[in-house]
Amino acid sequence: MVTETRLTEEQLKKIVRDVPDFPRPGILFKDITPLLAHPAAFETCIDALAEKYQDANLSAIAAVEARGYLVGAPLAYKMGVSLVPVRKPGKLPYETISQKYELEYGSNTLEIHKDAVKAGQRVLVVDDLIATGGSARATGDLLSRLGAHVVGYAFLIELTFLNGRDTLQGFDVFSLMRY
Amino acid sequence: MVTETRLTEEQLKKIVRDVPDFPRPGILFKDITPLLAHPAAFETCIDALAEKYQDANLSAIAAVEARGYLVGAPLAYKMGVSLVPVRKPGKLPYETISQKYELEYGSNTLEIHKDAVKAGQRVLVVDDLIATGGSARATGDLLSRLGAHVVGYAFLIELTFLNGRDTLQGFDVFSLMRY
Repeated sequence: MVTETRLTEEQLKKIVRDVPDFPRPGILFKDITPLLAHPAAFETCIDALAEKYQDANLSAIAAVEARGYLVGAPLAYKMGVSLVPVRKPGKLPYETISQKYELEYGSNTLEIHKDAVKAGQRVLVVDDLIATGGSARATGDLLSRLGAHVVGYAFLIELTFLNGRDTLQGFDVFSLMRY
Repeated sequence: MVTETRLTEEQLKKIVRDVPDFPRPGILFKDITPLLAHPAAFETCIDALAEKYQDANLSAIAAVEARGYLVGAPLAYKMGVSLVPVRKPGKLPYETISQKYELEYGSNTLEIHKDAVKAGQRVLVVDDLIATGGSARATGDLLSRLGAHVVGYAFLIELTFLNGRDTLQGFDVFSLMRY
């Protein structure tokens, strides 16, 4: 947080809204829509991520559908690098590879276009929030299978008590707000 | 297209990929992922939209899940206005209102948070592509029901033969690439 117009982590955390019992009873959901509605807060987040990776020599940012796009798209725009959308099955129109990952109950699958990245390209995985890290890890695995170099994983929010960093062990993991 | 580094509409259209028979046989899908992967092309699009609306006194940009986020999020960031996500049913955590719209076969529903915009705010609806205009219109209707003023509708791609403008009659509709 460099300039005076930027908000601190504590200020950002006050803007994020807690919604109890969503999507299931007992879950306290971190709702970023008030942050998206607050231009100075949103700009603080995107600019902080851009600064963090400005010397990382990135070729691309991979963002996970759908909320990951809200962070990854402006970050790619700001940094002038490629934007790679990772989607749920059947959504990407061209040839894809897919990666399954485990959830608390059941499993999910993510897909990426086969030509989304070139071998050796340096790619950052971006999402709004890291919980257990399953979708982020699946995204990183998709990129690795295409021969890209996963530079790290960046999030607005980290739910530290879910230990998502363990899922991404060996990689650089960065988050702006920790709970 | 003001500066020399910007691409022309013809150059942008060459970067968009045609994928036949997606999502159904007989449909020629306009795949924007090569454009997202091309930083100068993506920047051209976002900057052209920002220029078009720079004097429109916008308070917010409403973007439709999921591909609309790829355009709306960087545009809101660039313009320094609020970003309002419109989502499929059950995805937004807080109190919502919903709007149904008709498809060629069946119908879909979109939702918005009740506190997403304030009465009187000037809001632009953004999506990657306008086909028949149903989801854009539903988004505009959601905003109107919350008392916002819909300034217009902006798209990267317009499929003119589907007459989506008729669905948005009475509103300003802008697109960067027309097919």
